[in-house]
Amino acid sequence: MARTAKINWVVGDCPAIILVKPQLGENIGATARAMLNCGLTDLRLVQPRDTWPNPQAYAAASGADDILVSARLYETTELAISSLQVVYATTARQRDMVKPVIKPQDAARCMKEAIAVGTTVGVLFGAERSGLNNDDVTLSDAIINISLNPSFNSLNLAQAVLVVCYEWFMATPFATGELSDLDSENWRVPGKTEPVNKADLLYFLTRLEGELDSCGFLQPREQRPTMVRTIRNIFQRARLTDQDVRTLHGIVSGLTRKHER
Amino acid sequence: MARTAKINWVVGDCPAIILVKPQLGENIGATARAMLNCGLTDLRLVQPRDTWPNPQAYAAASGADDILVSARLYETTELAISSLQVVYATTARQRDMVKPVIKPQDAARCMKEAIAVGTTVGVLFGAERSGLNNDDVTLSDAIINISLNPSFNSLNLAQAVLVVCYEWFMATPFATGELSDLDSENWRVPGKTEPVNKADLLYFLTRLEGELDSCGFLQPREQRPTMVRTIRNIFQRARLTDQDVRTLHGIVSGLTRKHER
Repeated sequence: MARTAKINWVVGDCPAIILVKPQLGENIGATARAMLNCGLTDLRLVQPRDTWPNPQAYAAASGADDILVSARLYETTELAISSLQVVYATTARQRDMVKPVIKPQDAARCMKEAIAVGTTVGVLFGAERSGLNNDDVTLSDAIINISLNPSFNSLNLAQAVLVVCYEWFMATPFATGELSDLDSENWRVPGKTEPVNKADLLYFLTRLEGELDSCGFLQPREQRPTMVRTIRNIFQRARLTDQDVRTLHGIVSGLTRKHER
Repeated sequence: MARTAKINWVVGDCPAIILVKPQLGENIGATARAMLNCGLTDLRLVQPRDTWPNPQAYAAASGADDILVSARLYETTELAISSLQVVYATTARQRDMVKPVIKPQDAARCMKEAIAVGTTVGVLFGAERSGLNNDDVTLSDAIINISLNPSFNSLNLAQAVLVVCYEWFMATPFATGELSDLDSENWRVPGKTEPVNKADLLYFLTRLEGELDSCGFLQPREQRPTMVRTIRNIFQRARLTDQDVRTLHGIVSGLTRKHER
């Protein structure tokens, strides 16, 4: 399957996502989907409440079945992280612990650096209702504090996973390099049509202004320069293509012909 | 309620989230939760599939009930955006349209800057199964491309909302500690005139299309939707002000009157 082949760009060098005592199959499935959306594939479950495999997880995964099929089950958090070298614990509230507390985007950079030198990394997420208990947090090297609106800080489990995975993805070369053509000033013109050249644009504008002169719109005379500038700026800002300018010529022809018949 | 009081730090100056034809109440509720997690409060629903209010939405909102209670329902996307001045459309795949395509984090910076000068902003999200249709994308000023793993790019609706809201939150002074110098584009046109609201823009476009129908320009009939989209995208891209739209009305009046005398 093409998808399975393509996700190999990250397999083996991405963080493990470890759900500790997840309650709802839907959230496990949504977690798998969010992981695969961001190119992560290593899902580990510690004592999921319901039997596994869980049909509701598959329904919510919306096609990220590979992640669920390869998910590993563990009896304890200790076993789930035993192969890992660096473990982060996610929390929404402050814990009374002496541990580094970092934001998701800083965690992503740290994980990136660690994985780049061959370190194995994982991130712990607690149960829906209560989050990680203090013993599980204690197992971690650092805390990822997903701190958003301080007065409504409880994220859905799969949403918390997405935040961590999304920041991971944004730190990958894939996001920062290959997709960099999607920067804020990318006026991509899909397909066959090109940005119009200025000669053709000016030809259109001159034609339009001629029509507007002849219908009396550009009156009074002393206002004409200002009005022309306003009109030119409108069409200038639209970043027209060749096809757009042909369309605009058609519009002017259509509108002026309307009452000729 | 303490929560309601505290979220005021963003109320009134955050983007609207507009779900177009959402299918599942769970996703509407999860959207509300994700919004409030990130301090957003203005939820608008265009033709939700199920009856509203929807009990499943409240269950999934996990306490973000205020967002659902104050959510507004609309018959059409046009009505839902009519009070807004800048609208983004979210897509996972490329569309065959000439529009700026930006990443969520750049969109967040642009929205921040626009809102800082009093511009009203909203973000459109399509239905679970199919996303936004082309006509809805055409209503937007720019496309937010939530482009993650290219081989598994379909995000759950509420997850897509979270990505946009999370980037919004990360761009707020609340998250960054200060407003850094924002180099993204300023949508405000200097001077006394304001960016046109969508109701006035759509009124103009509808009028223009009416004139083009009556002069036979929008023929043959099966090509009409494509031609209308091209025309709407031209004027959408121009970032029109109130004054620009008055000018364009004058142009259409002038051109159509020309041969009436």
